Amino acid sequence: MKIDAVDFFYLSMPVVTDAGDGSQDALVVRLSAGGHIGWGECEASPLVSIAAYVCPMSHGACRPVADSVLGRSLASPADIALIAADLELNSMDLLQAAHTFSGIEMAMWDVLGRARGEPVWRMLGYKRAYPKTPYASMLFGDNPTDTLAAARGAVAAGFRAIKCGWGPFGRSTLAADADQLHAAREGLGPDGILLVDAGQIWRDDVEAAALRLPMLAEVKATWLEEPFLAHAYEEYGALSKRGSIALAGGEGAHNVFMARHLIDYGHPGFIQIDCGRIGGIGPAKQVADYAVAKGVNYVNHTFTSHLALSASIQPFAGLADHKICEYPISPKSVAVDLADSQILPDANGEIVLPYGPGLGIAASPEGMRPYLVDVEIRAKGRTLYTTPSLN
Amino acid sequence: MKIDAVDFFYLSMPVVTDAGDGSQDALVVRLSAGGHIGWGECEASPLVSIAAYVCPMSHGACRPVADSVLGRSLASPADIALIAADLELNSMDLLQAAHTFSGIEMAMWDVLGRARGEPVWRMLGYKRAYPKTPYASMLFGDNPTDTLAAARGAVAAGFRAIKCGWGPFGRSTLAADADQLHAAREGLGPDGILLVDAGQIWRDDVEAAALRLPMLAEVKATWLEEPFLAHAYEEYGALSKRGSIALAGGEGAHNVFMARHLIDYGHPGFIQIDCGRIGGIGPAKQVADYAVAKGVNYVNHTFTSHLALSASIQPFAGLADHKICEYPISPKSVAVDLADSQILPDANGEIVLPYGPGLGIAASPEGMRPYLVDVEIRAKGRTLYTTPSLN
Repeated sequence: MKIDAVDFFYLSMPVVTDAGDGSQDALVVRLSAGGHIGWGECEASPLVSIAAYVCPMSHGACRPVADSVLGRSLASPADIALIAADLELNSMDLLQAAHTFSGIEMAMWDVLGRARGEPVWRMLGYKRAYPKTPYASMLFGDNPTDTLAAARGAVAAGFRAIKCGWGPFGRSTLAADADQLHAAREGLGPDGILLVDAGQIWRDDVEAAALRLPMLAEVKATWLEEPFLAHAYEEYGALSKRGSIALAGGEGAHNVFMARHLIDYGHPGFIQIDCGRIGGIGPAKQVADYAVAKGVNYVNHTFTSHLALSASIQPFAGLADHKICEYPISPKSVAVDLADSQILPDANGEIVLPYGPGLGIAASPEGMRPYLVDVEIRAKGRTLYTTPSLN
Repeated sequence: MKIDAVDFFYLSMPVVTDAGDGSQDALVVRLSAGGHIGWGECEASPLVSIAAYVCPMSHGACRPVADSVLGRSLASPADIALIAADLELNSMDLLQAAHTFSGIEMAMWDVLGRARGEPVWRMLGYKRAYPKTPYASMLFGDNPTDTLAAARGAVAAGFRAIKCGWGPFGRSTLAADADQLHAAREGLGPDGILLVDAGQIWRDDVEAAALRLPMLAEVKATWLEEPFLAHAYEEYGALSKRGSIALAGGEGAHNVFMARHLIDYGHPGFIQIDCGRIGGIGPAKQVADYAVAKGVNYVNHTFTSHLALSASIQPFAGLADHKICEYPISPKSVAVDLADSQILPDANGEIVLPYGPGLGIAASPEGMRPYLVDVEIRAKGRTLYTTPSLN
């Protein structure tokens, strides 16, 4: 079969705030091939990612993403890799291309799986999808009281692991950070898995991050996530040597090289990959293989919908020992409504990927409709993009 | 003074081909502050870079570039660095942001220099702008005969150094590549500096690149440029050890980390930075300082206008020993006409940056007018961008 059409749907909450909550808008991709429909989702700026799909060519190495995708043969996973490789050269100078392509690549796996009647994880070579322990991923509250309440809420909802991140953490005093951490631990209880996400706040300042290591040890945090900018591999490496707490990072990786370099030079205990940014499921699986070889734990990065969640778990679905899995606990309604189903924890508090074909979760046109953003892009006398019909 | 306005002008040739010729379109930035006008140029997809300036916010770490720029105080180079640092966190998840910001950052230096009556290189701490030896940067011809003629043309125009790149090189047989290289050397003569640009064609295939090392040695090439993808640092490192020819690379760097990592892990002899991609002049100067410390030669990457050429030479203007400088020999007319003046070789065949304030070269509204692309971007019921007036 051939790729006949690719459509982008920009969805948004009516109001988007400057909170570090990535579920406030979404970019859903619908791909048609051989009479089948596949879905994907970019974890990226919707408007900019759409522009990268439709933009006029600037030269041979700065072509729109569409040029590497439309009309291409799609008969096997090898075809997906071939298209991805062509894109790397065709759109070498188009920085946004990796983010745009990520959702398309997911949709290719989905459509291929649906055509074959196979789940994606099986096409990746896994024999089964192992249960994962979801951690409730949430933002720090504006104050310790709110953080305590949120942590208690996650425990009441059945979670044994939580991650608190962003918000005021790292932006004020050491004492304020310590209060936040103790509130999170108190709400979670002494035995739960506590993860902490600094959201790159210390940039490349190893000392500023190191000042928080004792308090992180005190609350028995399992990891400190993204202390530094995405490319600051050496700073990760320097901090890794300073304390006993494992580092986590990698969500900013927009290609396999970046994830590998973070592993090799930053020595994190956990490598976190967002399939909606790294170029999709294929490159994420390469990182998972590399992580296994290097003794690093692979974890998905997901702060959006369960369509994105399914895609981001596929690459490590078959790794029984890579157990922890990010799970957005309170996404905005757009992220819930856009998918036709949800991946819910079972009685053991664990989640398992669907055994249905493709991603096992589709986008819901009716669910998306209330959030659909009207977009029009015109250049060089042509209309390059208008919001397509959901029907 | 404060940044009052930033305008983007997308310029294009009437026809854009898939040749590896980056001068076929341009994105010019006009920045107004305190009654002064500064100019910059992004070496990037114009439409996508504009979209990254105006896009709706997705969340606190995925904001449009405009949010970090408009209304900001601009009194010193430190203010420019502060704005750049804020952008890194505010637009952390907006991949295109670095390309968009690059032209804005140049325009900040330009406007600051014009307000102070100082050239940019002096604000960077250099006492003088040393002459550079320009190399004529051209594409390989479709066949060796065309390459020979182009090389002879460059010599006739007074160039002592040429770079041939892209086109058929690396895409066919070893014999065809050897023929191209010998044609270039023959046209240049035995004493000229011959540089070869592979345009990432071997991706991460060290063996494929290594097969060309003997023929490169035979024609006495000074460097082999971009054998691999921009992030393939280890592959650069592996090839560096395999032969005596120096490697060159770095034009794909969209932050200082990438350039430093290429130097540290790829061991190139030459680090090539495009100020229109790495975030502007400030980060490029950081790379130049790093290159000096590591004994690596800094070279500008420029395949567009002389406005971009001026910006890209500023960061190493004061480094007397870093002599070679990329100089586009046959850019498309848009790249010539958009600037109000050109940097021409003197009687010694050398070029020197203007001593006028700022970049010393401004964009020419009248020169840009015939190439101006009409663009309109609408989303969420608002017009986010329409092509601004050149007046």
